[in-house]
Amino acid sequence: MSTTDRQLRVGMVGYAFMGAAHSQAWRTVNRVYDLPARARMALICGRDAGRVADAADRLGWEAHTTDWRGLVARDDIDVVDICTPGDSHAEIALAALAAGKHVLCEKPLANTVAEARAMAAAAATAQAAGVRSMCGFNYRRVPAVTLMRQLVADGRLGVIRHVRATYLQDWIVDPQFPLVWRLQRERAGSGALGDIGAHIIDLTQFVTGQQISGVSALTETFVRERPLPAGSSGLAATVDGAVPMDGHGSVDGHGSVDGHGPADGRRPATGLVTVDDAAVFVARLDGGAVATYEASRFATGRKNALRVEINGSLGSVVFDLERLNELEFYDATRPAAEQGFSRILVTEAEHPYMSAWWPPGHIIGYEHSFTHQMRDFIEAVATGADPTPSFADALQVQLVLDAVTRSADRGSSWTEVEPALATVAA
Amino acid sequence: MSTTDRQLRVGMVGYAFMGAAHSQAWRTVNRVYDLPARARMALICGRDAGRVADAADRLGWEAHTTDWRGLVARDDIDVVDICTPGDSHAEIALAALAAGKHVLCEKPLANTVAEARAMAAAAATAQAAGVRSMCGFNYRRVPAVTLMRQLVADGRLGVIRHVRATYLQDWIVDPQFPLVWRLQRERAGSGALGDIGAHIIDLTQFVTGQQISGVSALTETFVRERPLPAGSSGLAATVDGAVPMDGHGSVDGHGSVDGHGPADGRRPATGLVTVDDAAVFVARLDGGAVATYEASRFATGRKNALRVEINGSLGSVVFDLERLNELEFYDATRPAAEQGFSRILVTEAEHPYMSAWWPPGHIIGYEHSFTHQMRDFIEAVATGADPTPSFADALQVQLVLDAVTRSADRGSSWTEVEPALATVAA
Amino acid sequence: MSTTDRQLRVGMVGYAFMGAAHSQAWRTVNRVYDLPARARMALICGRDAGRVADAADRLGWEAHTTDWRGLVARDDIDVVDICTPGDSHAEIALAALAAGKHVLCEKPLANTVAEARAMAAAAATAQAAGVRSMCGFNYRRVPAVTLMRQLVADGRLGVIRHVRATYLQDWIVDPQFPLVWRLQRERAGSGALGDIGAHIIDLTQFVTGQQISGVSALTETFVRERPLPAGSSGLAATVDGAVPMDGHGSVDGHGSVDGHGPADGRRPATGLVTVDDAAVFVARLDGGAVATYEASRFATGRKNALRVEINGSLGSVVFDLERLNELEFYDATRPAAEQGFSRILVTEAEHPYMSAWWPPGHIIGYEHSFTHQMRDFIEAVATGADPTPSFADALQVQLVLDAVTRSADRGSSWTEVEPALATVAA
Amino acid sequence: MSTTDRQLRVGMVGYAFMGAAHSQAWRTVNRVYDLPARARMALICGRDAGRVADAADRLGWEAHTTDWRGLVARDDIDVVDICTPGDSHAEIALAALAAGKHVLCEKPLANTVAEARAMAAAAATAQAAGVRSMCGFNYRRVPAVTLMRQLVADGRLGVIRHVRATYLQDWIVDPQFPLVWRLQRERAGSGALGDIGAHIIDLTQFVTGQQISGVSALTETFVRERPLPAGSSGLAATVDGAVPMDGHGSVDGHGSVDGHGPADGRRPATGLVTVDDAAVFVARLDGGAVATYEASRFATGRKNALRVEINGSLGSVVFDLERLNELEFYDATRPAAEQGFSRILVTEAEHPYMSAWWPPGHIIGYEHSFTHQMRDFIEAVATGADPTPSFADALQVQLVLDAVTRSADRGSSWTEVEPALATVAA
Repeated sequence: MSTTDRQLRVGMVGYAFMGAAHSQAWRTVNRVYDLPARARMALICGRDAGRVADAADRLGWEAHTTDWRGLVARDDIDVVDICTPGDSHAEIALAALAAGKHVLCEKPLANTVAEARAMAAAAATAQAAGVRSMCGFNYRRVPAVTLMRQLVADGRLGVIRHVRATYLQDWIVDPQFPLVWRLQRERAGSGALGDIGAHIIDLTQFVTGQQISGVSALTETFVRERPLPAGSSGLAATVDGAVPMDGHGSVDGHGSVDGHGPADGRRPATGLVTVDDAAVFVARLDGGAVATYEASRFATGRKNALRVEINGSLGSVVFDLERLNELEFYDATRPAAEQGFSRILVTEAEHPYMSAWWPPGHIIGYEHSFTHQMRDFIEAVATGADPTPSFADALQVQLVLDAVTRSADRGSSWTEVEPALATVAA
Repeated sequence: MSTTDRQLRVGMVGYAFMGAAHSQAWRTVNRVYDLPARARMALICGRDAGRVADAADRLGWEAHTTDWRGLVARDDIDVVDICTPGDSHAEIALAALAAGKHVLCEKPLANTVAEARAMAAAAATAQAAGVRSMCGFNYRRVPAVTLMRQLVADGRLGVIRHVRATYLQDWIVDPQFPLVWRLQRERAGSGALGDIGAHIIDLTQFVTGQQISGVSALTETFVRERPLPAGSSGLAATVDGAVPMDGHGSVDGHGSVDGHGPADGRRPATGLVTVDDAAVFVARLDGGAVATYEASRFATGRKNALRVEINGSLGSVVFDLERLNELEFYDATRPAAEQGFSRILVTEAEHPYMSAWWPPGHIIGYEHSFTHQMRDFIEAVATGADPTPSFADALQVQLVLDAVTRSADRGSSWTEVEPALATVAA
Repeated sequence: MSTTDRQLRVGMVGYAFMGAAHSQAWRTVNRVYDLPARARMALICGRDAGRVADAADRLGWEAHTTDWRGLVARDDIDVVDICTPGDSHAEIALAALAAGKHVLCEKPLANTVAEARAMAAAAATAQAAGVRSMCGFNYRRVPAVTLMRQLVADGRLGVIRHVRATYLQDWIVDPQFPLVWRLQRERAGSGALGDIGAHIIDLTQFVTGQQISGVSALTETFVRERPLPAGSSGLAATVDGAVPMDGHGSVDGHGSVDGHGPADGRRPATGLVTVDDAAVFVARLDGGAVATYEASRFATGRKNALRVEINGSLGSVVFDLERLNELEFYDATRPAAEQGFSRILVTEAEHPYMSAWWPPGHIIGYEHSFTHQMRDFIEAVATGADPTPSFADALQVQLVLDAVTRSADRGSSWTEVEPALATVAA
Repeated sequence: MSTTDRQLRVGMVGYAFMGAAHSQAWRTVNRVYDLPARARMALICGRDAGRVADAADRLGWEAHTTDWRGLVARDDIDVVDICTPGDSHAEIALAALAAGKHVLCEKPLANTVAEARAMAAAAATAQAAGVRSMCGFNYRRVPAVTLMRQLVADGRLGVIRHVRATYLQDWIVDPQFPLVWRLQRERAGSGALGDIGAHIIDLTQFVTGQQISGVSALTETFVRERPLPAGSSGLAATVDGAVPMDGHGSVDGHGSVDGHGPADGRRPATGLVTVDDAAVFVARLDGGAVATYEASRFATGRKNALRVEINGSLGSVVFDLERLNELEFYDATRPAAEQGFSRILVTEAEHPYMSAWWPPGHIIGYEHSFTHQMRDFIEAVATGADPTPSFADALQVQLVLDAVTRSADRGSSWTEVEPALATVAA
């Protein structure tokens, strides 16, 4: 433990799946890493007073509130950590930045490009005043992903030719799975596309150092009508993301329901699914690579299958989030008879983030990516550096999501990704 | 061995990579399977007299000729097996069908839709006279692929939601790899698309029982100029596909060159690559599935990576040609705690084609798919049934290839696949 | 969070690799699970005052001490958690039990059978007075391992025929790796055998429900002399296990050194390795199974490769600790054409321990096995149940280790495992 | 094809599983490789006149006979290929060598050490007269295995520390599987040990260049009584190995039965299993390595799972016969952050035997190992070199089998492997 007494007092908004993951990370980060400041879990905010009190107790927050505006305004809060659904990101982030708080905002940055542009602009303004902001694309901090980035940056893959990225889940294959907030456009912005497609867009751009310049896309909603969640009087009841703390709670931690429908045999009321179940697109990256992307919640048997393969003129890498401690690396500069995909177990002290954890071969899990994210965020804030990915980086992802949506809406026609700079500069 | 004395006298045109593979299959098929007729390797044809004589000797053909028209005309030939590059398929096949020969034609059926339509029409006409025809999409006869088809046909996957198919190779990543015939549009028709993309189009349509109805595509030629093959006075010298018999001969068995360039230090003459290095597309299938396809010769480290995953409402299957004895099957109707992708080693007597081979766990190789193809072809011809895939099936694949090309040429715009029936019926 | 106010005040002795792992678990367990008592990290003990103070600060303990006897004697400690090297387990555990403290003791239970017998006897005595004890074979609580046990217990494997278990590491392949305490018999008891071999003995006995009845063994010390650790004035300095908190610190978290030798070019002093580098043995289990076991620190490329395969008359299971979220299960009662090893991703709510963590497919890591262990320990203590594995269970493992050592010492001759009951009953 | 007219006229004795595999290889070898002589499939011999006639027809032999002594005596036979069960190897081989025929004998060389010693002595005598002999450990010619040997021989693994080898099958797990000849000591010599254990003994000795010097072993017969094969009037009827040509025929190609028992409901007559179902042993190799070996026919789900891992001071290799086109290689001299097990797809022209087959990534199967074996045998005979493994090499394997049996018979006591030289020199 460092001897620092410097504290970063965190106020977190939201306490569902992401709130639990962030809490685990805030609780752990200073226990594992020597850092120039200590995170203090000062205040947690949610809409339901009873639930947020429970969450504070369980997750280890010192205090709780139902008033996020009050949280943002408090003098004794240094960092605002936004873990709510996407429809409230912009409002909270803009208020927090205006109040001079450092902001960590979950992905996707916003539900619309307009919101994202506003947030990026506000972040740029605040940055000039020493206020830091970051978007929570946590998978950049999976050690194997960071290692991929290093290999590409070091030229080990040569010229990048191909990117193929899928993020596959299967939690709504059952047509009786209820209409949770993640299936409602007004809450979630989009479906698989923004929820998990955003991750592979960010991850591949991060790793390759290239940006998607244009896409041709297809989206599909296989099941267009679903039962309403039981016990919900509309979706308002779930506004704070009232998923039970355990990620495996009802509906697989992906949404907010109390049950699967009325037990009295009446046919449950149904509603329309207004987001995509799956999105696929081909793309060009600005460095010359050709890419395919797929995000789906209908890939039976695939639970959290974020898989990325990148082929370059000198080598290739393959990553699978379900085996996140491993990286496959093909080095085409090796002797011909010895070339092969090497399964690197990314648990060595030489690997990113790993020297602080366990001995080689002792694997880490999903939640560690958040701890690594908090580590870098704390270090950046404490040393006056800008953490990445910035809101501008996240805006660019939003612009890709937007291009995908526009292409799909216009019969898969080729659609250029709008430049991020235009409005930011405006 | 059956006691039959019935013979099918085969005349094969072409003796390069495909010719060697077909020869191995003709030589083996009656040694392994009990069939109502025996294949007799009667005559082999190639343009270069010396080379075709050598090929006949090595591959085990009774006689050889340089005159394919003569071969087609002979009374003592029952079957014409076409293993030449795609630009000569139509002419030979039409002549053979007209002469009343049963025809087995390598894929892709032709280089153009017009040729393919003519061939399908001729096959339909000949079929009425008891003449059989088949296109050599040999991967349908990989036992694991046939098993996939059975699982889908039996309803084990439920409603098909997703197809993702890639066929990745890396044999031209080196910009100094020469301009072999497979990189010339006038010989090969297209590049990765027709050579290997055709395989995954056929395979996924076969397995799902659905046809691709529309696509949005992107193609790329990463290296646009390459050295001319040394020793070639133009490509005429390689017209018969004069690849050394060993598939690993110069240029990895994929083309026809004697070397990589002049040894005297002069800069070799170069020529333009006129086909695609890679083709990617998203697609819809007529049964409602959403799909991604990718064919590339620039996927460093991927040698023959035909990989297909199909997700249905009740289960999923995964196949990888580099591990062609295995099939992964996910059965979502199993108890939740026991669900997983099962690695089925497709070497049991209960599996398609396998009861004739070795004990369980003793794997087979690439070439066996041809033996299985010859088995089914012989059986169909001998019993008066129509083998599959028919020329009409292969025409449909050609129409998909055409739609991909048109979409790519028109800025990835959505492009419907033309119906096959229209012209066939005409 | 439960609303309980009941606390279990934990005093932990040792703060190296295991101390860090246990701390992470104590810190996390009540944040994830609803339990009838809360662990309070009350007091940490180590020999070096400065280091233990640092450890307390970093790991989150309320207080620290260098006096383990004092810790054991305090009225405000309910649980003694022993994380020291094996040579001090017996003394501390006996004192703690005598003082009426619940005891959690790291594995192996002791360095000698005599010590282990004394500990098991003391635990039995204490148990009558409501004092609980448990040995820390944490891998029993890896969800995939617990699931294996369930499958066997449910009869899904039928009659167990084969056990093959390896635990392979490679951290001392380099002959210049220093002579840390784990390579000294007087501190560690044995080498790979007791350190990692103990794990696979316990794990396979737990999963099969059978006990090893006899063995024929071979041990080897490939490198018999190694440099002494620099900066150590003997090994006393490392007695409390003063490994830096980060498991990856010097010597891979496996021992206690400050460096690899003198930097001034002098040839470092060396000492004799007095434990096994590797131990292999064949065994019979009392239910009729035939087994092979191997523990090695010389398996280049294997970092933490605990792998177990169990074959029964109806099925088989395979587990690999480097992919601890997965279990392979072969169900021979399935239709022949569909049998295969199913890769179960053990991250579903239906899987042991997992409903409290993340959504399906979001994997957990090594450290979670300790959290699960603490969960079960707390629950047992709070509800007045006996946790497992008991000291008697751990004594039985010690007896197997002893049989292995005796067999190896007597030229691999067949050696029966002594019964545990004899002395326990005494 | 070479222009050679030199022929090697082969007479093969036996036509069951091994006979079919050898026939496929003899038929193929000159079609694929340029060799200084051509194999001519002159004569096949079996005990049952009708069956051997069928086999000749199906497998492609020019003539057939029921008189192996006549075959050995004929002037127009150059090579005798022995594919019978082990109890007749010695008699046939000794006669053939005495008659000056080159001999290829299937493994294991014999059923007893005495026979094997006599055969090795005869081979040594014959060798002086230019007569060649070879034992058919075909797995040495799996390209990945040959590559392993090259890596070890080139020093890429450094000092070999560990060998772990298993050969697992499951074809007799069912207690109702009948008592085929392979389960009878007088025919087969031993059970899993000699049948499949012999393979891993030879393979690991070949790859490491070390010999097993001593063992401590355990064998087990889990099912001691089995139904007699239906339709067999004793085992005489199966003496020539009358397995149907298709390896998957009754009883999985592993034995010789016409069915599984009487269909009329009577309880079938049973007999005693007189061989081991499984054999496990620990061993030392003469170069210092420590090893574990396991051969079993009771490993449910393992079909032909010959798996070998070898750890050296500089690297490791892993091989799995069910994925025989792959080799995993760990190179510990690579940078720490990039080390991993590389999955080499052993299908490149640079790999042993592969330049003659298909392009990279087009895999080969089990049977190809026999074609490679015939290639090397023909080349050796034609050029006057001694093929390997020699009868002396195979005798050494027999001595290891014998040591295993003796150890198991004497309560797993440590048993030195007898030197081969003693008698050979006599």
